[in-house]
Amino acid sequence: MNRDFLMEETKSQMPTRRWEHTLGVMSSAVKLAKRFGADPDRAELAALLHDYCKYWPIAEQRSEYELAGLEPDLLRYDPQLIHGPLAAEIVNRRYGIKDAEVLDAIRYHTSGREAMTLLDKIVCLADYIEPGRDFPSVDAIREMAEHSLERALVAGFDSTIQFLLNKGKKVYPLTLAARNALIDELNRTNPSDGAAE
Amino acid sequence: MNRDFLMEETKSQMPTRRWEHTLGVMSSAVKLAKRFGADPDRAELAALLHDYCKYWPIAEQRSEYELAGLEPDLLRYDPQLIHGPLAAEIVNRRYGIKDAEVLDAIRYHTSGREAMTLLDKIVCLADYIEPGRDFPSVDAIREMAEHSLERALVAGFDSTIQFLLNKGKKVYPLTLAARNALIDELNRTNPSDGAAE
Repeated sequence: MNRDFLMEETKSQMPTRRWEHTLGVMSSAVKLAKRFGADPDRAELAALLHDYCKYWPIAEQRSEYELAGLEPDLLRYDPQLIHGPLAAEIVNRRYGIKDAEVLDAIRYHTSGREAMTLLDKIVCLADYIEPGRDFPSVDAIREMAEHSLERALVAGFDSTIQFLLNKGKKVYPLTLAARNALIDELNRTNPSDGAAE
Repeated sequence: MNRDFLMEETKSQMPTRRWEHTLGVMSSAVKLAKRFGADPDRAELAALLHDYCKYWPIAEQRSEYELAGLEPDLLRYDPQLIHGPLAAEIVNRRYGIKDAEVLDAIRYHTSGREAMTLLDKIVCLADYIEPGRDFPSVDAIREMAEHSLERALVAGFDSTIQFLLNKGKKVYPLTLAARNALIDELNRTNPSDGAAE
């Protein structure tokens, strides 16, 4: 699939400010891929497409999601969770994107999941730290991302969970499962580093 | 079963300071039961027995837990989670406590669970707010407990999850499920009160 064509297609799905965010996630994903030994082209492709459906009206996202027969439990949580799994479905259908790892990285970029792949981690983290992002712990997370994908992602998920706790909103269980699994991973690699139970 | 006998038995399982905590949970549970329409005697019994195993050595808790064939996934999380389900097992075995709701309230007093019963909520909340407790949000939670079990419990679980996030520890998924279910319950009762998604 032609990169320029997909760029134009994706750009047309969202407002300019969000397109700038997408470009930021692409460049961050490529950097992280080079730093942590993933394929930069696949990281860039997943990053390009990750928010493909995000600016569709929520009602349309929801009905397309249901129509595609995707996991119904997700609809009990924040509607911001819909666009990832939906984008994986839509870009497969519209552009014949078949690379399962790219599709998973798109699918799980907001929620995370247990046992995240290297590509999942890169796209999810790039989405937290791209240059346009500005939230309280973002600089600390960028700093961690110089050395450890897992540590940086735990901090990213912490900020998301924290935000939802403060707002009295439900937390999607897969996000907690993602964070728990990353902590296990860190403890296995580095049992005495203090991130342990 | 004779109340004084069970008091003596339980007292003998723990240091004095923890026995005082148990007495505090008993009196708080009775108050909450009267306030929210549960049976004060069953609330008091569950409160009396909730920490029965808490001061057993962790290795012994773990081996008794495994021997009893209890849910193995829990052992991947904080060992402080073991004593609730273990106590339900042990007090059934030693004293013939058969009341399923009392046993559940003991079993889930630390973790919570989805679809908590009235008795589950009372014992879990009493454990957060008994007079001897002193943690940053305890007074706010006591205040909420005057009016809403569910709101107070969400705040209790928030403080637990917050603590675990700050420590870089894993969060037991059942605790998140408990909090999510309570938020659903609050939203069903009071859809416009701002605790919603």
